[in-house]
Amino acid sequence: MALDRLKQAAAHVTGQSEPPHPFDPLTGTEIEQAVAIVRKEHSGLFFNAVTLWEPRKAEMMAWIQDPKHTPRPHRVADCVCIGRGSKVYDGIVDLTEGKIVNWELTEGVQPLITMEDLNLVEDTVRKDPKVIEQCVISGIPAEDMHKVYCDPWTIGFDERFGSGVRLQQALMYYRPHVDDSQYSYPLDFCPIFNADTQEIIHIDIPPVRRSVNQAPPNNYHAAAIEAEGGFRTDLKPINITQPEGVSFTMDGRTISWQKWKLHIGFNYREGAVLSNITFDDKGNERPTFWRLSLAEMVVPYGNPEHPHQRKHAFDLGEYGGGYMTNSLSLGCDCKGAIHYLDADFVNRAGQAQTIKNAICIHEEDAGILFKHTDFRDDSCTVTRARKLVISHIFTAANYEYCVYWFFHQDGTIQLEIKLTGILNTYAMNPGEDLHGWGTEVYPGVNAHNHQHLFCLRVDPNIDGPDNTVFQVDAARGSGEVGSAENKYGNAFYAKKTRFETPEQAQSDYNGATSRTWEMCNENKLNPYSHKPVSYKLVSREIPELLPKEGGLVWKRAGFARYAVHVTKYDDSQIHPAGRHVPQTSGEPSQGIPAWIAENPTANIANTDVVLWHTFGITHFPSPEDFPVMPAEPMTLLLRPRNFFTRNPCLDVPPSYCSVPSGVKQGSTLVDKISQLAFGGTQEKKGSCCQ
Amino acid sequence: MALDRLKQAAAHVTGQSEPPHPFDPLTGTEIEQAVAIVRKEHSGLFFNAVTLWEPRKAEMMAWIQDPKHTPRPHRVADCVCIGRGSKVYDGIVDLTEGKIVNWELTEGVQPLITMEDLNLVEDTVRKDPKVIEQCVISGIPAEDMHKVYCDPWTIGFDERFGSGVRLQQALMYYRPHVDDSQYSYPLDFCPIFNADTQEIIHIDIPPVRRSVNQAPPNNYHAAAIEAEGGFRTDLKPINITQPEGVSFTMDGRTISWQKWKLHIGFNYREGAVLSNITFDDKGNERPTFWRLSLAEMVVPYGNPEHPHQRKHAFDLGEYGGGYMTNSLSLGCDCKGAIHYLDADFVNRAGQAQTIKNAICIHEEDAGILFKHTDFRDDSCTVTRARKLVISHIFTAANYEYCVYWFFHQDGTIQLEIKLTGILNTYAMNPGEDLHGWGTEVYPGVNAHNHQHLFCLRVDPNIDGPDNTVFQVDAARGSGEVGSAENKYGNAFYAKKTRFETPEQAQSDYNGATSRTWEMCNENKLNPYSHKPVSYKLVSREIPELLPKEGGLVWKRAGFARYAVHVTKYDDSQIHPAGRHVPQTSGEPSQGIPAWIAENPTANIANTDVVLWHTFGITHFPSPEDFPVMPAEPMTLLLRPRNFFTRNPCLDVPPSYCSVPSGVKQGSTLVDKISQLAFGGTQEKKGSCCQ
Repeated sequence: MALDRLKQAAAHVTGQSEPPHPFDPLTGTEIEQAVAIVRKEHSGLFFNAVTLWEPRKAEMMAWIQDPKHTPRPHRVADCVCIGRGSKVYDGIVDLTEGKIVNWELTEGVQPLITMEDLNLVEDTVRKDPKVIEQCVISGIPAEDMHKVYCDPWTIGFDERFGSGVRLQQALMYYRPHVDDSQYSYPLDFCPIFNADTQEIIHIDIPPVRRSVNQAPPNNYHAAAIEAEGGFRTDLKPINITQPEGVSFTMDGRTISWQKWKLHIGFNYREGAVLSNITFDDKGNERPTFWRLSLAEMVVPYGNPEHPHQRKHAFDLGEYGGGYMTNSLSLGCDCKGAIHYLDADFVNRAGQAQTIKNAICIHEEDAGILFKHTDFRDDSCTVTRARKLVISHIFTAANYEYCVYWFFHQDGTIQLEIKLTGILNTYAMNPGEDLHGWGTEVYPGVNAHNHQHLFCLRVDPNIDGPDNTVFQVDAARGSGEVGSAENKYGNAFYAKKTRFETPEQAQSDYNGATSRTWEMCNENKLNPYSHKPVSYKLVSREIPELLPKEGGLVWKRAGFARYAVHVTKYDDSQIHPAGRHVPQTSGEPSQGIPAWIAENPTANIANTDVVLWHTFGITHFPSPEDFPVMPAEPMTLLLRPRNFFTRNPCLDVPPSYCSVPSGVKQGSTLVDKISQLAFGGTQEKKGSCCQ
Repeated sequence: MALDRLKQAAAHVTGQSEPPHPFDPLTGTEIEQAVAIVRKEHSGLFFNAVTLWEPRKAEMMAWIQDPKHTPRPHRVADCVCIGRGSKVYDGIVDLTEGKIVNWELTEGVQPLITMEDLNLVEDTVRKDPKVIEQCVISGIPAEDMHKVYCDPWTIGFDERFGSGVRLQQALMYYRPHVDDSQYSYPLDFCPIFNADTQEIIHIDIPPVRRSVNQAPPNNYHAAAIEAEGGFRTDLKPINITQPEGVSFTMDGRTISWQKWKLHIGFNYREGAVLSNITFDDKGNERPTFWRLSLAEMVVPYGNPEHPHQRKHAFDLGEYGGGYMTNSLSLGCDCKGAIHYLDADFVNRAGQAQTIKNAICIHEEDAGILFKHTDFRDDSCTVTRARKLVISHIFTAANYEYCVYWFFHQDGTIQLEIKLTGILNTYAMNPGEDLHGWGTEVYPGVNAHNHQHLFCLRVDPNIDGPDNTVFQVDAARGSGEVGSAENKYGNAFYAKKTRFETPEQAQSDYNGATSRTWEMCNENKLNPYSHKPVSYKLVSREIPELLPKEGGLVWKRAGFARYAVHVTKYDDSQIHPAGRHVPQTSGEPSQGIPAWIAENPTANIANTDVVLWHTFGITHFPSPEDFPVMPAEPMTLLLRPRNFFTRNPCLDVPPSYCSVPSGVKQGSTLVDKISQLAFGGTQEKKGSCCQ
């Protein structure tokens, strides 16, 4: 009865007969309905964000348990609007009820910069007389201002201008030709743009001036490569086909594949959001993670000379991983049989916009899943692995971030991020001493040292929400060499530290002890090992935050001070550096440090917790990273430990299986179409697959 | 003239018209010729190894420089023979000259255990009355001895028996049925086998006895899976085809692929050996590495109870990664268009034996090579990557090691090792306290904690043999927050430590500083960055050696005490734990520690050096690793830094390329056969590849 009313309401909202899944992103229709509801009461606003206000966890868990007898969570929009005078409004709009349920003017904050915001800046700087004057000083004729470009960045935080006015900094470049890579022609001054008045309010000019680079263009587009001798011709095609289609099914945005089941969401901040991830263990659908997402990142640059300290973009919190997402395309970004999901966002004017093919879903062969040969008789079982890939790619001005979520048949979830795109560059004079803060990657081009630090938000649901996080270190046994207990000195074990408060759970990485973190359900022991069922975070690329304690980045990017933080679950705690990140001073630090400060000794043992993991790389540029960077991968794993009673993928059909008694069993997945590289049949005789 | 004579000699030796490449492994013909030459002077010997005695580096470098005018290195066999009374003979046989050039009786050492040696043990234990007695005590009727199995291991070192007599320890198991996995039925006693007299000389019996496991079998063979409900049926095939063939060419065992060129060798100890690896940089064939190989490994187990301290196999030095190599087969271990290389070895009786398809060579699609989109106009270049894979898999009793050498188009060399196979297991009583040294992975089955520590031998040749190794740490700039030099605290740089002596070069890993090691040629600076051309070792899985200083494993596996050692090049220094590893006491430590002790302050700067890198994992077993382990990967990279003046793969044809001026250039590699997972043409319209 109530459900029917809601269904009708939903149908009215979405134009679909079935209501969207409560985790589904807002549809274009829902976005525009939210805008209409806001406009009824508030006028003269620009829309910064209209996104799904996710159902509260308790409500949603109840509904998932028993959808038939539980009220369906309402469709609710989380809105951020900007009015004249850099006024920011945060609103919550209940679409099911068709009304605003919360609306407030939020003082002293700046919401993220949208692509539309960015595009306004370039036009302004080209027309600004003071900018033109600086271009002329740099050696660019005033009539060539159409050859001047800028990458608008949030200003980060500049104490001279504070947080009250919405600002951007314009990193300046020049292009001799419209198709030339501007990153070979950085300019040395930096205009500050007021997004409210749309004017340049200041220009930072360095004491030592550097003229525009005189080096020839350094391009990678096809015409340039052709001019240099053309593309290599010795690469033969590799075709990947799935003649019988894919092995996954989609029910709306819920995917089922090889015992895995999860919902694939998407929002303007985090990009892909994976929810209610379960694994079918012999017919029992076991929860593993309630929600996984890349929640924040920061890219601090290492040059202390003013104003480079402002270069420390929070690409998710200040621009939005969703907003910057590429439209993917068959063959270019993915191979095989692909399923795409689009992404709908609001624009500044309040209309819904779609990014086609924002998320790519496909399968890949993953080599050997397991193999063993008995040396006595060569009886052998070998089984090939498959993985599911859920990916999206976003462009943050110069850089590209390729985000791949892999689901493996053995119960492992893997996150891989590939960095590509172009180095952020700065001008330098011939022979200038770079003091070790950067590298001359091309004559006249200084690429500064930087870090890419990502914050992964892990909301574990290991056989239920009440979980405990343990730090696990490989440790030597007690007893010196020669002692009765450890005569030969070979004793070692897994030393486990139970995290009981957020304060205590602030932990660094330790490579020497192969430190990992286990998310356990202490209420459920593995029947064989008698250890709590768990998933282990295995992550090895965890540099320290290099900006110093008390410094600007340290204050603003509190989440990056430790490799791992653990907090008690709170519906409102999604963004590790805060809800509105641009122009935050870091005094006090927003997000994780603030949440922990509220109650540093709260209990986080055997309760609903969230693990925040910061990882990434430190990048000292070199010429081979330029003019475009070969993709650099980094990865981490979430692995089941004591979660299953045995290898959960033994029932994957083997490529080959023989047993000592001589019976050859199963040869089901043999790749009959594999060929020898150079003909010849004799070798093939050796094959077990014939 | 001299060359012709050598060619004829070689032809005589190999039966080929062209002599083998000096790096080629000995052919079967050469092996048997070496045996014949030895037999002429020495009788009553078993052959443990007859392998290529590699050409001396100076001689070989000269020949490669100018083969026409330089004497071709002779074909030489390195022989290890065993005579009665565990006598060991090391011999060098010049095949080109047809004579023994060196022959010596080596006292107090034991060469590695061959597969033939292993197979002798099981027959012996089954017949031995004392072993039968222990089986009966374990609950196995004497008439069921055919159901008793053992994994024969080298004894490692047992001070009670020393090094003079050739010994093996027999890890005992039971199989209810011949096809059952024995690792669910470990027995608690350990016979010691004398390989010389082929008898059991001792049995280690624990104070607390444990009967044979009563749990049902835990199998993964097809019949077992069928009986439990059968294989999953929802996995659709993925076909990988190369209709135009592969992109590499082979000249004997020298492969050319995408600017890479290298020789692929193979020997009984290291398995694959990659030599004279060069990269074509705009027509200039630049040396990168003279020789790369996995040179040694050790697998220490963490249970201090006697005699488990003996479980620390040196799988390469004590058994041989080559000897244990699997014969690979199309479709099972590899997909696509494959080229195989066989491996020839000597057997105990002196005959040549062949492992078919020992090495697999193939290409794989490797996702995105690089991509950038201009946010202003969506002009975009995206290029797909390809990698070359050279792999082999060896079975060390219970474990499988899958070794993959990846060559990337961007100049990166990657080593990936996948661990699979079966956990080594030990008996336990119901409810027995395992004291944290192991995990009950199945009722009655105790899998002990262990490490897999590999030693990679890197002989750099970065634009020539005179190289210097630097340790590189990410470091904070000087100057406190607020100071003039570092006002915002964001300064950081790459701190480089120059290694000048082997003693100083003994270095640990440091995860916090993202420590890497650069192999530089200080005599050649990058023209843009003015930094030495280099290759950087990027390795993140580097646990400490957990066995304690002064303990048995610490003494025997000296190479594993540090993440990195650097030594001055010496032709004779190939094996990090010594030439003959079984039954070494570690007093003094062989291999790397001994070499360094000879001259701890030798100059290793700007000279011919070798870098030894120990990496791996620490494994605390859990039930999901059993009865067969899902493959667990680990990886490391050798990346060019300041080696090229720009991204060296810009000439790889792009999948798609458009420029701001609107011209769409090149769409050469578009994967026309990719499909949408669920039909529909509308989405396809979004594709840039149409």
